[in-house]
Amino acid sequence: MKRRDLLKAGILAGAAASLSARAQSAQANQPGILTRARNLIFFAYDGMGWEDYAIAQFYSRQVLGKPLALERFLASGVSGLQNTNSLTSFVTESSAAGNAWSTGVKTVNGGLAIHIDGRKLTPIFALAKQQGKAVGVVTTATVTHATPASFLVSNPDRNAEEEIAQQYLEFGAEVYLGGGQRFFDPAVRRDKRDMYAEFAAKGYGVVKTLGELRASNASKLLGVFSSSHVPYEADRRFQGVNVPSLADMTRAALPRLAAYSKGFVLQVEAARIDHANHLNDPAGSLWDILAADEALEVVMNFVDQNPDTLLIIGSDHACGAPALYGAGPSYRESSAGVLQLEAQKGTFEFMLARLGNNPTPDQVVEIFRTVKGVTLKPEQAQVVVDAITRRVFQPDGVRYGIQPANTLSWVMRQTNANKPDLPNIGWNSGQHTASPTIFGVYGRGIGAARIGLIDNTYNFTLMTRALGIRFQNPVMSEQEALEVLKSRAGAPTLHPEDVLA
Amino acid sequence: MKRRDLLKAGILAGAAASLSARAQSAQANQPGILTRARNLIFFAYDGMGWEDYAIAQFYSRQVLGKPLALERFLASGVSGLQNTNSLTSFVTESSAAGNAWSTGVKTVNGGLAIHIDGRKLTPIFALAKQQGKAVGVVTTATVTHATPASFLVSNPDRNAEEEIAQQYLEFGAEVYLGGGQRFFDPAVRRDKRDMYAEFAAKGYGVVKTLGELRASNASKLLGVFSSSHVPYEADRRFQGVNVPSLADMTRAALPRLAAYSKGFVLQVEAARIDHANHLNDPAGSLWDILAADEALEVVMNFVDQNPDTLLIIGSDHACGAPALYGAGPSYRESSAGVLQLEAQKGTFEFMLARLGNNPTPDQVVEIFRTVKGVTLKPEQAQVVVDAITRRVFQPDGVRYGIQPANTLSWVMRQTNANKPDLPNIGWNSGQHTASPTIFGVYGRGIGAARIGLIDNTYNFTLMTRALGIRFQNPVMSEQEALEVLKSRAGAPTLHPEDVLA
Repeated sequence: MKRRDLLKAGILAGAAASLSARAQSAQANQPGILTRARNLIFFAYDGMGWEDYAIAQFYSRQVLGKPLALERFLASGVSGLQNTNSLTSFVTESSAAGNAWSTGVKTVNGGLAIHIDGRKLTPIFALAKQQGKAVGVVTTATVTHATPASFLVSNPDRNAEEEIAQQYLEFGAEVYLGGGQRFFDPAVRRDKRDMYAEFAAKGYGVVKTLGELRASNASKLLGVFSSSHVPYEADRRFQGVNVPSLADMTRAALPRLAAYSKGFVLQVEAARIDHANHLNDPAGSLWDILAADEALEVVMNFVDQNPDTLLIIGSDHACGAPALYGAGPSYRESSAGVLQLEAQKGTFEFMLARLGNNPTPDQVVEIFRTVKGVTLKPEQAQVVVDAITRRVFQPDGVRYGIQPANTLSWVMRQTNANKPDLPNIGWNSGQHTASPTIFGVYGRGIGAARIGLIDNTYNFTLMTRALGIRFQNPVMSEQEALEVLKSRAGAPTLHPEDVLA
Repeated sequence: MKRRDLLKAGILAGAAASLSARAQSAQANQPGILTRARNLIFFAYDGMGWEDYAIAQFYSRQVLGKPLALERFLASGVSGLQNTNSLTSFVTESSAAGNAWSTGVKTVNGGLAIHIDGRKLTPIFALAKQQGKAVGVVTTATVTHATPASFLVSNPDRNAEEEIAQQYLEFGAEVYLGGGQRFFDPAVRRDKRDMYAEFAAKGYGVVKTLGELRASNASKLLGVFSSSHVPYEADRRFQGVNVPSLADMTRAALPRLAAYSKGFVLQVEAARIDHANHLNDPAGSLWDILAADEALEVVMNFVDQNPDTLLIIGSDHACGAPALYGAGPSYRESSAGVLQLEAQKGTFEFMLARLGNNPTPDQVVEIFRTVKGVTLKPEQAQVVVDAITRRVFQPDGVRYGIQPANTLSWVMRQTNANKPDLPNIGWNSGQHTASPTIFGVYGRGIGAARIGLIDNTYNFTLMTRALGIRFQNPVMSEQEALEVLKSRAGAPTLHPEDVLA
């Protein structure tokens, strides 16, 4: 489409002035894919915005002495931005964002590959499977979490993860790697079904530790490495938590999928950047971006060696807007916050698990010292104790929604204007935010593609084009959706304040 | 450069692990400009990040019923991101960012087109003037402020604005439009020089009101429309403050500059987005982005009609990370914060000027009601009184640095998790932040350009190429700069905590 036509399209769509109409306009900017791809890899950064990207970029340059693989990806040029709003909300959660990517249409927040009126949508990996592609998902969240699940199955409730585990069995992807043992384990599932046995009976190698993952020679894999989400990279790396890294899981998935004769589709998700941002945990976010980068390097190397593979990267939304802010005269001391992150060797999740339900101020001081490299004053330790034991949170206000973690973050905020003695990093909230996010493509087939600013639904167009699939999911208008929502007013809250969405 | 070579360059530069070396690597991604440009317009968004962009984008779509001109610019595809770090700091202020754009080399925060050791740099508009181009700067800041000044003159102190006014006289640009009467007025200048008379003697039409601007038929213009910065758009639009808008000034500048036979260079700066973000003022930021958009529309129309003109847009840094955050079950009530901005009809600057130094709680309640559409409780009004009269600020912590404004913002924060009754917008600080920012090009000559992620210094390369200029300013290493800074430890603070940088 020529620029002038594009402007016209933008103006016409603007007259309609609805989100869905505007989404169509954003889609008018369509990077072309010149050649078909045999394999397609979607690399998802969950909850990463540009501010946390910047911190990781500078940390990698300055402390680790090398650029991010992601920085090289961005510098190679075929990248841009995507709008992430869902059908009825400027701020998306992960299932609606996943649906936009995987079905090409906007949906209401909360369900997987489904409209709010119950109409099921066909996600991209189901279409690829019909083509004979092998299918894999790799994530640091529960393997049944929204972003991978939205590429595979339909469900009105993203939180129905026991049921989603059954849907996975039925779907029959070749590789499922992530967390979420509790949705497979007969001792924990409400219905006592032994999903491990059922997957094994269908020919899956079932692994639950890094050792088992490395030892397995099964061609199909179900790997679940923790009860819930896979622990954060900072805890894996510095606190001896023994789970596979995202790169470990990616390295296990790729050769297995590549062995299938008709090619494959794979989603790799760095899921816990989002969680760390919900918690306002700077080291949690940093190290999960760095872990993602190791996995991205693995994937980029694969694409370099297998040029019939198209790689797409995207972040489903930003979260918390964690930003390094200027400090010192003329902001000349601003870099301190990044450099001081080197002292942080673990996450709030790890610390809270150690502290338990009834910690003493001394225990709080000790764990901040050893894990965060931060010396708390007695009154600060008491704030942490009060947050854990009495649910008194600081500072007040709902924007600090993931507690008691956000209070732990607030307690260690920087207060020296002249020369920061703690990371000068702040959050706007513990929630997802509205900004456009990263989107990029990599591989031989991308030709003269441009991204600019696209809508997240355009990923589906890109993927179906690359795979040679013609398919259109049914579009729902914002107005229709709002009417359905109105008729359900008073229905139970899907995500209370304290949930990681 | 081919991708593989780029990767190599990235890895080599990474080994050096200094900011400046890494900047070179980022520069490896160089969008090509295929044809020379007769005219060159640089459109600067000061202090706009992606979160505030998103809020303006959605407000324009949903409330104003039309897409932003900037959204159309981004959707047309030739845009991407720039790193903004200065020579020694991950967070830049406006002069170092301006220098990167205007001289092509990184500098230490604080000076204009100059290295920290005193070596002067030649800014792009000085080079263009040598070519015979007409020169203009249009801004909503003081016309002598860092972003325009860094394109024109060298000065070790960006705050020496009386002296910069003299340098402007000597430089002899054709159009100077903005704020800053106090740096020209003999009744206010410390040296009592009558800069108005001196400019008039050199053939400038000197105007101080919108009426005078409209009435003037002078071919050269000095227009200064307020004592300091031009008042915010929200106050101009809703509170009857009678000053030209950025679009008004742009419309005055373009035909004058276009009349010169050898073409022109122009910087248009939407300066006060930054200031509103420093103050954490959501309506201030929103309306100044919308005002910028009207000016951008003027400029894009000019480029469409004058295709020998190249337009470059960029934001020098983000500020405050003001983000719409998710609210309600499954974040389904998130859009409220944007829609509720409609009730806000003015800025904290306007309110604080009205309240004066000793307001009563009743006066505070009244002005929040009429200007922000917000009903404060008595205890909230008292927090505002205490901030103004006793400098007691909320919440504590240096990240809230621009006071008492940040406290006013904190007082009206949203606290209803289920359905926001106030804008669900939060800030990470009142300071500049580190994220990459918008950069894009528009015009006939851009060909198959890609942006991806570039360094802000690359703007100089782009501009000199478009103008056919070969020039290299001297590079200073980060190490050299750090040594100079070290030798000056204890020197006076250039920007105390409360200054808008």
